[in-house]
Amino acid sequence: MGRMSRIEAKLKELGLTLPPPMQVPGGMALPFPWINVRGDRVIISGHGPQNPDGSLAGPFGKVGAEVSLEQAQEVARKVGLSILGSLQRELGDLDRIAGWARVFGMVNSAPKFDRHPAVINGFSDLILAVFGPEIGRHARSAIGVAGLPFNIAVEIEGEALLRA
Amino acid sequence: MGRMSRIEAKLKELGLTLPPPMQVPGGMALPFPWINVRGDRVIISGHGPQNPDGSLAGPFGKVGAEVSLEQAQEVARKVGLSILGSLQRELGDLDRIAGWARVFGMVNSAPKFDRHPAVINGFSDLILAVFGPEIGRHARSAIGVAGLPFNIAVEIEGEALLRA
Amino acid sequence: MGRMSRIEAKLKELGLTLPPPMQVPGGMALPFPWINVRGDRVIISGHGPQNPDGSLAGPFGKVGAEVSLEQAQEVARKVGLSILGSLQRELGDLDRIAGWARVFGMVNSAPKFDRHPAVINGFSDLILAVFGPEIGRHARSAIGVAGLPFNIAVEIEGEALLRA
Repeated sequence: MGRMSRIEAKLKELGLTLPPPMQVPGGMALPFPWINVRGDRVIISGHGPQNPDGSLAGPFGKVGAEVSLEQAQEVARKVGLSILGSLQRELGDLDRIAGWARVFGMVNSAPKFDRHPAVINGFSDLILAVFGPEIGRHARSAIGVAGLPFNIAVEIEGEALLRA
Repeated sequence: MGRMSRIEAKLKELGLTLPPPMQVPGGMALPFPWINVRGDRVIISGHGPQNPDGSLAGPFGKVGAEVSLEQAQEVARKVGLSILGSLQRELGDLDRIAGWARVFGMVNSAPKFDRHPAVINGFSDLILAVFGPEIGRHARSAIGVAGLPFNIAVEIEGEALLRA
Repeated sequence: MGRMSRIEAKLKELGLTLPPPMQVPGGMALPFPWINVRGDRVIISGHGPQNPDGSLAGPFGKVGAEVSLEQAQEVARKVGLSILGSLQRELGDLDRIAGWARVFGMVNSAPKFDRHPAVINGFSDLILAVFGPEIGRHARSAIGVAGLPFNIAVEIEGEALLRA
């Protein structure tokens, strides 16, 4: 029986299940990997939220109009689980991550919406709960964008670093 | 007679010609380089599409309104040629690139447009055709933005890494 | 009496005062550091403009509508001072910076506004004045976004590198 990794144990303790690979709608070609490892850098493509079956999760639309702040925070959390799933598949073991570097959070925003940081907290809180304050520490930006692929409510990209 | 570099030969095989330096409209000062090399990192400023004479290429405006999806894909491809031109001038030889790291694609979007990945594929397909799947592999995000400089349809920034 | 660092002397010569830590409006939790140092990388979270007392600085709203180009340039300069303040507090001495890598400038844009580079020049000009052309050199993108936190006019993130 293999040793359970520290992060794997933490996910279990938190009752979190990572989704399977993204099912891209309509067969659109995405000619890039979800995670690009170059040396010790783990560069994370823009991810959206997933349902447990791997499909893109709603609610879809503009935050501040069709999507509420509370719903958007939950979407951001689901984006986090999607990214953790991609990292798990690419790295094999999430314990290989030495530290988070950068998180860039994009909110599909209605014209007057300006609580982007509160939305992306749904992601940051998850990363900190799973990795703790030292490894999970990340620089962050949160902005409102004019549109996102397939009208998802939140997209997040970023970068982490591998242990030597 | 010098040896032709591998990537130079590939560009020739694909019938691609790289544009000259960007002619910025209206004499606006741009106090930054198109490419910033720091150690082994090749950081790529946001580029727009160029005409063969170096000027900014149209069509201009919002994708999903004044600019069609197919036109926007061609614009994204032209942004790729613009970036390859900048890299060629800065690095001297595109064979110095060990691998692509990150691509961030910004689409000047009409309110309902949500096919940003299909647009940025015009860029990714070019990079993969020129560099191949291993060196050309890149993490990617594609989003809709509220506006771009000079009303260009697509802007792309990114990062690549140099050979040791 | 301690030696004054080179950049500290330059700030004094230019008559610049760095603001105190950001006072986030309404007690919103921001679970991330303004600067994240990982190895020799100094990753800079998205910053807004600050008043001398540390609060967020106006004018607030969309550039090209409620905020003029000239006002937005001054906002971008204030974002630069905010970032320099964060760097000073995190690094202790701004002379530790070996070089700037990347600057990403986001302008809260009215629909037709397309002079984003002119806005972000307010930031770039400050960085070049303080650090000089070699250390201050940065790759840059400037875009229009649909919204920014607390309706600030400009947000900027980026990365610099530490001396070995």
